[in-house]
Amino acid sequence: MKAVAVFPKGHEVKVIDVPEPRLEAPGQVRVRTLEVGVCGTDKEIVQGLHGRPPQGEDHLIVGHECLGEVVEVGAGVKDVKVGDLVVPRVRRPCSEASCAPCRQGHADFCVTGQYTERGIQGAHGFCAEFFVEDARYLHVLPRELRQVGVLTETLTIAEKALRQVALLRQRVPWKRDAPERAVVLGAGPVGLLGAMALVRAGYETTVYSHSRKPNKKAELAESWGVPYLSSEELEVKALVEQRGRADVVYEAAGAAGAAFTLVSGLAPNGVFVFTGVPESEKEKVDQGALMKQLVLNNQVLLGTVNAAAEDFEAAVRDLSLFRGTWPGGLEAIITARHPPEDYAEVVTGDKSSAVKDVIVFSRG
Amino acid sequence: MKAVAVFPKGHEVKVIDVPEPRLEAPGQVRVRTLEVGVCGTDKEIVQGLHGRPPQGEDHLIVGHECLGEVVEVGAGVKDVKVGDLVVPRVRRPCSEASCAPCRQGHADFCVTGQYTERGIQGAHGFCAEFFVEDARYLHVLPRELRQVGVLTETLTIAEKALRQVALLRQRVPWKRDAPERAVVLGAGPVGLLGAMALVRAGYETTVYSHSRKPNKKAELAESWGVPYLSSEELEVKALVEQRGRADVVYEAAGAAGAAFTLVSGLAPNGVFVFTGVPESEKEKVDQGALMKQLVLNNQVLLGTVNAAAEDFEAAVRDLSLFRGTWPGGLEAIITARHPPEDYAEVVTGDKSSAVKDVIVFSRG
Repeated sequence: MKAVAVFPKGHEVKVIDVPEPRLEAPGQVRVRTLEVGVCGTDKEIVQGLHGRPPQGEDHLIVGHECLGEVVEVGAGVKDVKVGDLVVPRVRRPCSEASCAPCRQGHADFCVTGQYTERGIQGAHGFCAEFFVEDARYLHVLPRELRQVGVLTETLTIAEKALRQVALLRQRVPWKRDAPERAVVLGAGPVGLLGAMALVRAGYETTVYSHSRKPNKKAELAESWGVPYLSSEELEVKALVEQRGRADVVYEAAGAAGAAFTLVSGLAPNGVFVFTGVPESEKEKVDQGALMKQLVLNNQVLLGTVNAAAEDFEAAVRDLSLFRGTWPGGLEAIITARHPPEDYAEVVTGDKSSAVKDVIVFSRG
Repeated sequence: MKAVAVFPKGHEVKVIDVPEPRLEAPGQVRVRTLEVGVCGTDKEIVQGLHGRPPQGEDHLIVGHECLGEVVEVGAGVKDVKVGDLVVPRVRRPCSEASCAPCRQGHADFCVTGQYTERGIQGAHGFCAEFFVEDARYLHVLPRELRQVGVLTETLTIAEKALRQVALLRQRVPWKRDAPERAVVLGAGPVGLLGAMALVRAGYETTVYSHSRKPNKKAELAESWGVPYLSSEELEVKALVEQRGRADVVYEAAGAAGAAFTLVSGLAPNGVFVFTGVPESEKEKVDQGALMKQLVLNNQVLLGTVNAAAEDFEAAVRDLSLFRGTWPGGLEAIITARHPPEDYAEVVTGDKSSAVKDVIVFSRG
């Protein structure tokens, strides 16, 4: 079968031919890959900045944002059946006896760093015509999500973040007079889906991103009723004057300088969520002022990575709700579909589109 | 009666004579001041860096860490009676209609910044022979806490912090195999009482502070079984090698550089609590590396200030528990008692002692 793999030694990414995987143990499921989303992490893997092949292999089959259809279920599988639309989780637990989170089903909080991630760290991904997976790592989607289910994994980042923000809200147990405000930093798929999740959670939400209007991302956000403001045109101070301080900032840009600048726009008792993995960025900054701001305003900076089973379940539920609220909104985030042969050019940018690129493996 | 007041215009602090306060409304209580603790905030007020007198006045009666004895109760007061040992809270709500937290009894999360604080911001403090206070701002202490009750307010900082840490622990719902680790940065009264609170909460706790051993603070910590390590002798990397990464850091030093350096010693899923209000400190730092660390490790930086009624109740309970665990431990934190006439010299350092200085207004 066809697969897309990165060969780190030769800095190469190409379509290869590999044997079709077969069920090898009870509890496993064989899945036909329908679509795989491409994101910034994939770009870094192709550039050799991130990721590693499975132990003893010279290549990594890429792809971690996947939508598939079940074609075979092994013995003992109860919750998944042939024909089901499924999305696999990405991270698999480490096998260290000392890692309580991994042993107890919370690999997204792994403390050893020895986890694997399909398509990223030490385990092949989903850019192949078929894959085999343990049923407990699969989430079943309603058939109505066939066209947008490939966005599930991207949305789980916001789901995990908002679950943590909700916990922190319990610090401050009074009733609100007015809706809280959220700013999303960055207007890529993580940001746009985060904006949808924040609106649904009741936040008066603004997207704040680099590119000037008009642009496709701004057009999408505003078509959902979410104002889009460009950081090129409006400094943080002016953003605050226009939209108020943010009770929640959802950082989805992966740029440290822009993120820390926006911390000054956080409201008292606010939570700033970092989701991006930035480059090193050395700058002269006033750490005293930052610390003083955090203390005197009871503010929180929260880093979050990956997502748990419950976040995937929440994302599946929310995708259905978003379809009701914004008909066609999710579909519009997927701005291009490509054949596997175009993977390299999609990742390097030559064939990339405005928002989300998806590789199609099967029309189902 | 005698009171200690700061006159901001003349940069003066002196003992003055003011009329004894009287009950003026139902619900009020008149209290004889027994002892008032002196802290870094008082030093800043005397230096003119912080604090302001009540509107229209040229002086501020200082003192916010207070232990008193009730001498008179007004109409309608039920929970406080004559002879009770009491500790007053510090912050009073703002009167802005827009401040939901203040309107609903959570002034420690005031969003307007228009709160007052007795002895600090716009309201006279407790460095006077008597004061009058609304009963709802008083917490009754058992008589056995007569000698150490003046430490209550200092401990509330840790109580509020640990309440928030406990909420964040719900993010990571697995069972622990081993006790979690805590590092307290700074060995002043806030740090030492924080260390006691962390030990009581089950953390394997280390105090990490500037001064080399031997010193009085190290001696105190180690007498309670809490290792003390000097940042002069041991860099953060060596601290981590010796004591492991910290699941919780409780910053109680008020120095931004030292605090952010210690963030590298935080364990995956760890929470770094900032309680100090530092000076401006501009340095070249790698914000990208900090953000990446927070994200990939699900880490949290949390600022916290002031404390709520529930934190005062928790502090009163914990002081009694600490007395059982470490007999004489709390008493030893109070390293000197002084008459009101010495206030200026205590605050400026000429008569300050190793750990906690207390001003005595009445032997009760």
